[in-house]
Amino acid sequence: MRHPATTVVALLAAAGILCSALPSAFGADIAVAPTGVTIPKGYRNWQVVAPSQRDDKDEIRVILGNNIAMKAIRAKRLPFPDGAILAKLSWSRVKSAEFDNTFVPGEPRRIEFMEKNAKKYVSTGGWGFGRFVDGAPADEGEHGTCWPCHEANVKGNDFVFTRYAR
Amino acid sequence: MRHPATTVVALLAAAGILCSALPSAFGADIAVAPTGVTIPKGYRNWQVVAPSQRDDKDEIRVILGNNIAMKAIRAKRLPFPDGAILAKLSWSRVKSAEFDNTFVPGEPRRIEFMEKNAKKYVSTGGWGFGRFVDGAPADEGEHGTCWPCHEANVKGNDFVFTRYAR
Repeated sequence: MRHPATTVVALLAAAGILCSALPSAFGADIAVAPTGVTIPKGYRNWQVVAPSQRDDKDEIRVILGNNIAMKAIRAKRLPFPDGAILAKLSWSRVKSAEFDNTFVPGEPRRIEFMEKNAKKYVSTGGWGFGRFVDGAPADEGEHGTCWPCHEANVKGNDFVFTRYAR
Repeated sequence: MRHPATTVVALLAAAGILCSALPSAFGADIAVAPTGVTIPKGYRNWQVVAPSQRDDKDEIRVILGNNIAMKAIRAKRLPFPDGAILAKLSWSRVKSAEFDNTFVPGEPRRIEFMEKNAKKYVSTGGWGFGRFVDGAPADEGEHGTCWPCHEANVKGNDFVFTRYAR
């Protein structure tokens, strides 16, 4: 007969294996930011809020919105309702080899999400922030930088930088 | 009894009034480029192929595709099938007032479309080109510049500059 402690260890080990196997079983959705924000399914197919571009980081971006977000934006309704999600896709900015003076997306740098849930994210303006690089969430320190900047600069637009490009 | 010529003039005048009234009756769809390309309904809601940016014109853009185009792009299938349409939306590039080194869309500059119809546009690689400024089509001279540039630079990608940004 096995010693009871050995059995406990064996059970814990089995549970550990099971838990570490879960992420691959659930696919990309399992990537969870320290804020609780996950990568929403189908975000690459969402509609465009606006493109943007950053000189210092040599980056080109596009900001997308899910249906709830786009409906609110088009109706000019603030604050955003619960369920609204905005996605920012960033790429390195590279020179087009085929057309002078033109820049196009190079390698993807990161994807970021802002997810509205007034109760869940009450301490950060009702927004949950998530940053992912190569499908993996950034750490808690990086996530701590999102809210202070949104709070300081765009309070008048429900803490959202991007405006709809008409 | 009226002189027959007067009647003809009256009829022509009536026809003229009718024709000039048609655009407002049909909405934005009535804007027709010299190539025959029109502004497709709902294009602003299409999915993103990629953003782009141009230094010399200080412009920021986003290139969208209808469902037929996006399906072909994701399947890496060339040439594009008939019915595929790509849309390029261009804005002036303006400095964000809220975030340093960041540029966002200003005023819209123009919208452009490439519409695949192998038979109709046989002399221009199967693509019909359309450029619209403030909803009005550009003239024939401007439209004559599209095809030579696409033909010279991106023959290997079915004459399409923009690649899908992953």
